Amino acid sequence: MNSGGTHRVVVVGGGFAGLYCVRALRRAPVEATLIDRRNFHLFQPLLYQVATGGLSPANIAAPLRSILSRQKNARTLLAEAVGFDVPNKHVLTADGARIPYDSLVVATGSTHHYFGKNEFEPLAPGLKTVEDATEIRARVLAAFERAERETDPGARKRLLTFVVVGGGPTGVEMAGAISELARHTMRQDFRAIDPAVARVVIVDGSERVLSQFHEKLSRKAQETLVSMGVEVVNGAHVTDVKPDHVIYKQGTVQSRIDAETIVWAAGVKASPLGKTLADALGVTVDKPGRVAVGPDCSVPGHPDVFVLGDMAAQTGADGKPLPGLAPVAMQQGRYVAGVIARRVKGETAPRPFQYVDKGTMATIGRGRAVAETGFFRFSGLLAWLAWLFIHILYLAQFQNRVLVMFQWFWNYVTKNRAARLITGLSRPTPADRSP
Amino acid sequence: MNSGGTHRVVVVGGGFAGLYCVRALRRAPVEATLIDRRNFHLFQPLLYQVATGGLSPANIAAPLRSILSRQKNARTLLAEAVGFDVPNKHVLTADGARIPYDSLVVATGSTHHYFGKNEFEPLAPGLKTVEDATEIRARVLAAFERAERETDPGARKRLLTFVVVGGGPTGVEMAGAISELARHTMRQDFRAIDPAVARVVIVDGSERVLSQFHEKLSRKAQETLVSMGVEVVNGAHVTDVKPDHVIYKQGTVQSRIDAETIVWAAGVKASPLGKTLADALGVTVDKPGRVAVGPDCSVPGHPDVFVLGDMAAQTGADGKPLPGLAPVAMQQGRYVAGVIARRVKGETAPRPFQYVDKGTMATIGRGRAVAETGFFRFSGLLAWLAWLFIHILYLAQFQNRVLVMFQWFWNYVTKNRAARLITGLSRPTPADRSP
Repeated sequence: MNSGGTHRVVVVGGGFAGLYCVRALRRAPVEATLIDRRNFHLFQPLLYQVATGGLSPANIAAPLRSILSRQKNARTLLAEAVGFDVPNKHVLTADGARIPYDSLVVATGSTHHYFGKNEFEPLAPGLKTVEDATEIRARVLAAFERAERETDPGARKRLLTFVVVGGGPTGVEMAGAISELARHTMRQDFRAIDPAVARVVIVDGSERVLSQFHEKLSRKAQETLVSMGVEVVNGAHVTDVKPDHVIYKQGTVQSRIDAETIVWAAGVKASPLGKTLADALGVTVDKPGRVAVGPDCSVPGHPDVFVLGDMAAQTGADGKPLPGLAPVAMQQGRYVAGVIARRVKGETAPRPFQYVDKGTMATIGRGRAVAETGFFRFSGLLAWLAWLFIHILYLAQFQNRVLVMFQWFWNYVTKNRAARLITGLSRPTPADRSP
Repeated sequence: MNSGGTHRVVVVGGGFAGLYCVRALRRAPVEATLIDRRNFHLFQPLLYQVATGGLSPANIAAPLRSILSRQKNARTLLAEAVGFDVPNKHVLTADGARIPYDSLVVATGSTHHYFGKNEFEPLAPGLKTVEDATEIRARVLAAFERAERETDPGARKRLLTFVVVGGGPTGVEMAGAISELARHTMRQDFRAIDPAVARVVIVDGSERVLSQFHEKLSRKAQETLVSMGVEVVNGAHVTDVKPDHVIYKQGTVQSRIDAETIVWAAGVKASPLGKTLADALGVTVDKPGRVAVGPDCSVPGHPDVFVLGDMAAQTGADGKPLPGLAPVAMQQGRYVAGVIARRVKGETAPRPFQYVDKGTMATIGRGRAVAETGFFRFSGLLAWLAWLFIHILYLAQFQNRVLVMFQWFWNYVTKNRAARLITGLSRPTPADRSP
């Protein structure tokens, strides 16, 4: 309690879990502080659209302050949480401040997982931040530009080969979008090359892409990708990434793909703040760095510390671990707000958290998606429309709904992608590069 | 002539002059090559909207390839021109290529002019590129964030002071937009500070802002700015810029403003390629680095080399030098396309270039602008609507018209600015900074 006696909730991380938690606290008799090192909430499920020039970063990001401006019991702090003083109940920030809490909610999400091969990162960036997305966008577009100017057939082929490592939703979306960019959007743009000959290859460790979906949908997704010209290599593990090629193993057979642009969508691990918190609490993290939480999302032995979203390892009602999906994070955020509000009011604890799976979906391309909800599975245009509808619905809270809808509709009709800018590229563009 | 006998026009720079020249060549019996180091055309007059979070970069930029994709006699080359081999008629690029030309058009525009004080640049960035705009946006937004966390009143005041050096159209637009951002858009966003107390100061060398406009409008613009809470210091020259303050002189009196965010809108000089070209041609450049051109926009003594836009020093029919405005660049581009087309077809040269001044306008804020066309001058909402209409009209060619219009309308109604992202800041954000 602070001097005024109001219960202080500090939420670290303005992603789905943290933001939904703060918003759900709006009528609770608490003082909520949301700490994030960025000034905006990012709608990560659409980040691949930024990476392929379909949307601008601002279309899928909304300033946290603006989302919370009317919530009187909430304030936003642009700061990086770097540690926890558990005995004194303080969050420590990079600029040396101490933020006191009565209840602590930590939800800083996940980051790319290179499984110990961190040297892959600059060569094969993942897709987690706005900067990742604009970097990948610049690399993909610059590869076509360089191919246009390249006269050596081998080098040109390498420039027009795009490898996506990982066949989960992000990998499938990226591969589908790059293929559409090459085959439709930029079809007439070049003079020396035909962008439609670009190779897009998914290297996936499973039997089929989207292996977490029902076999029928997963098979359908793979067929759709192939019909769009995407090559899929299954049961393959990438063992090396170099600036101009990828090495992968299928069983004992080693193969190589010459490619200039490589995108990493193979795995995620919890943000390192999870380990920092676990150390401070005297608990351990699991292999991908997540903190185990109990049925009320608090850390066992620390009823006032909650961990949510991709950072938390929680078991669902079916005994299986909950997946790292936005709906899980949102529901946990709302649930924990309820736990805290009830405690502050002296009410009994709510029932254990139960994830309500309303279904999962993944988009593959223009008018192509797969979706499953309960025993109902569908694919194609209907699934794509459902996907579109639900994503726009969620963006609604962030004012961008109409703009995004409009831009999509525009892109859909014109097959155009307006946000095709090469900006801030971290490696040389063709303009700087010797042939 | 190349082997096929087609006349080769090489245009360096995809701004208003270069792009309009290439487009106007679409029916000419030539082969046009547009060389630019960026892959997009940028609608610079609206860059201040990006710098203040009103629009996304992609709203005011369009891929050059996509603009020219259907123009069969044009190709786009992403390359940086760095030199000219005049005897052999080659443009030299940074990557070592030689691009042969029969006619050469050079129009790489202008850059910030710090009048010899280049050390000001990192402290007081100008507004010419997308990166400049996102950098200024990040600085402005981060200053409010840091003020929110600052407890020292002096430091807080410094963080909430924004100095715009220069009272031309860009300076006025920037100052007006920062003032609106503070007073309207973010009014409810903070808890510890009231953003409306932010000081926005224009330090201008002239008697009044917008001194190139008729005195009545210039006076009106200054009054409007003051009514919006912007302070204007006239007849003042900035003599020093430091990370936390600006020194200026009015006559012999020296003053200081403590400010964390400084924007440079005081002057432009020709892109350095102008000097490179002049040296190669054996001519000289004027003080701001421009190449003098004759009545047909070619360099005297070099009828096949044309210099356009902000890079060119040309005298108008009234004996006065033509201003560095987008309409001048566009009209020169179209005119030179005509000169080249006529020459290639063996027709007589057209009449000397004559700039048709359809009027000038500058916007100050929401519903506030000044405009003059011939003897007709107007200000306020009508001028703003005219400004809006004309800018959207010009954006039309680049597909973004409807999106931008929609976003403006949205911002106007909601007083919101959706693109308020702090990304890729080149200096520490509050999250990294010690208090």
